[in-house]
Amino acid sequence: MVDKLAITGGTHGNELTGVYLVKKWLSSPSLVKRNSFTTLPMLMNEKAIDEVRRYIDCDLNRAFNLNDLLDESLTSYEAKLAKKINSILGPKGVPKPKVDFIVDLHTTTANMGLSIVVSNESKLTWQAISYLCKKEPRLKVYRWQGDEEDAFVDSIATHGFAIEVGAVPQGVLRGDIFLETETLIYHLLDFVEAHNTNTLESLPTEIEIYTHQSLVDYPRQKDGDIMAMVHPDRQDRDFAPIEDGEPLFLTFEGKIIPYEGENLHTLFINEAAYYEKGFAMCLARKETKRIES
Amino acid sequence: MVDKLAITGGTHGNELTGVYLVKKWLSSPSLVKRNSFTTLPMLMNEKAIDEVRRYIDCDLNRAFNLNDLLDESLTSYEAKLAKKINSILGPKGVPKPKVDFIVDLHTTTANMGLSIVVSNESKLTWQAISYLCKKEPRLKVYRWQGDEEDAFVDSIATHGFAIEVGAVPQGVLRGDIFLETETLIYHLLDFVEAHNTNTLESLPTEIEIYTHQSLVDYPRQKDGDIMAMVHPDRQDRDFAPIEDGEPLFLTFEGKIIPYEGENLHTLFINEAAYYEKGFAMCLARKETKRIES
Repeated sequence: MVDKLAITGGTHGNELTGVYLVKKWLSSPSLVKRNSFTTLPMLMNEKAIDEVRRYIDCDLNRAFNLNDLLDESLTSYEAKLAKKINSILGPKGVPKPKVDFIVDLHTTTANMGLSIVVSNESKLTWQAISYLCKKEPRLKVYRWQGDEEDAFVDSIATHGFAIEVGAVPQGVLRGDIFLETETLIYHLLDFVEAHNTNTLESLPTEIEIYTHQSLVDYPRQKDGDIMAMVHPDRQDRDFAPIEDGEPLFLTFEGKIIPYEGENLHTLFINEAAYYEKGFAMCLARKETKRIES
Repeated sequence: MVDKLAITGGTHGNELTGVYLVKKWLSSPSLVKRNSFTTLPMLMNEKAIDEVRRYIDCDLNRAFNLNDLLDESLTSYEAKLAKKINSILGPKGVPKPKVDFIVDLHTTTANMGLSIVVSNESKLTWQAISYLCKKEPRLKVYRWQGDEEDAFVDSIATHGFAIEVGAVPQGVLRGDIFLETETLIYHLLDFVEAHNTNTLESLPTEIEIYTHQSLVDYPRQKDGDIMAMVHPDRQDRDFAPIEDGEPLFLTFEGKIIPYEGENLHTLFINEAAYYEKGFAMCLARKETKRIES
């Protein structure tokens, strides 16, 4: 039973889709109200939203590791904010946090289309995802084991995931992406309502997912500056296969650097926020995920 | 006669095409060397480049108004930087500044393609543009009279313009846009060399340009926050015509706000940096510009 679901936006202050969707639902709560549970729309990093920046001191969506939440020596703006958010939505790790399900709204400058990033393995989370895949066949699912383990906003609750939609620049609100994300949330609320009231239609028994394998950094100089770009043939080809020998990067002098490795798929290609994190794209394996009923 | 030409990049620190092209030419100056004149590649706002931000205190590309350059009471980071740049490239307003021609490299999150923004009416500037239009038929030309008069970087010199290429998110380097911009600069250098040596081939006698008419802001609430998005039917339609009654904005509640006015063309639609400036797009009139020979 889901008693309370949080829709969080503005975890990154320059990803405007979530910011304006949450603002819409804060002023029109009836749009996200369902009978069997409470919905909590919530703006996350209001200072970063005001400044239209991803964060003030450090990435809020890497700040929810349990050790960090308990570490009083961490005093950055986002470390403190994470503790506050954890007290409102969690606390993380208890059997029954204040919210049962978190969907965290993001956008990306990569051409990820409408996608879900999941690192939660709960049965209900996967059922929700399979429901959404049925309602929205273009939806792609990325099972992330990324740069920081178990530190996402949605990790506070027992169930949940992040929605990533792109391509959209930081600081830009696109109407098409706003509308697509909004529709996806209404599907999710319908799912939870049906789950709670035992009126769920049959779900797909398996879905296609992309399971994280590794991160690929840009070729860099000794001082850390990039010395090549994503090759134009690879740009925008998120969720596309890549084979050994295909062009991966192009140096500023025009030399092609090919991909070397097994056949995988490329995701989050050339995301603006990941230059400083040290990766140019993610590599993932396309797999079939069985959904427990 | 052009004795010295400056290629400026990183005027906005999060527009990476210009930053990495200028870095390339600083380390390989022979690529932009021509016999009849000196080329000066120059990084403009290095602090903003380091922080991958448009600016530190205020927009450097609105800081070159002659009154502001002479005003010692202006002490923002960019106001001081503008004075320093003016002493290196100018000074603005003298008959023979240190550089004769400035091409300032920009990108935009709007779908502007490969475009030139010109507010300089010199004969040589227009000849250079007509040459580039011949070499690159996709090139579009926007004659700007915008939010701040005569305050662009390129206004320091007697001749020049800005190159705007998009769509590319802030903080992202795209290979295709890097290569297109680089090629355009080599054409410009060829033009100046031919001009200086009297070997110029015949130029188009007229070109199509888009002349600035007005700025359109987002519908806003009393507190200044936007209350509508660019309508999905208008998004990405830079340099496209717009007629009275066509959808212009979409409110968050789903209400269409139509365009009201004469038939014009829309440019710089939904550029990230212009939310704070208070405009959602520019309106321009398509005209034919005669090129003096």
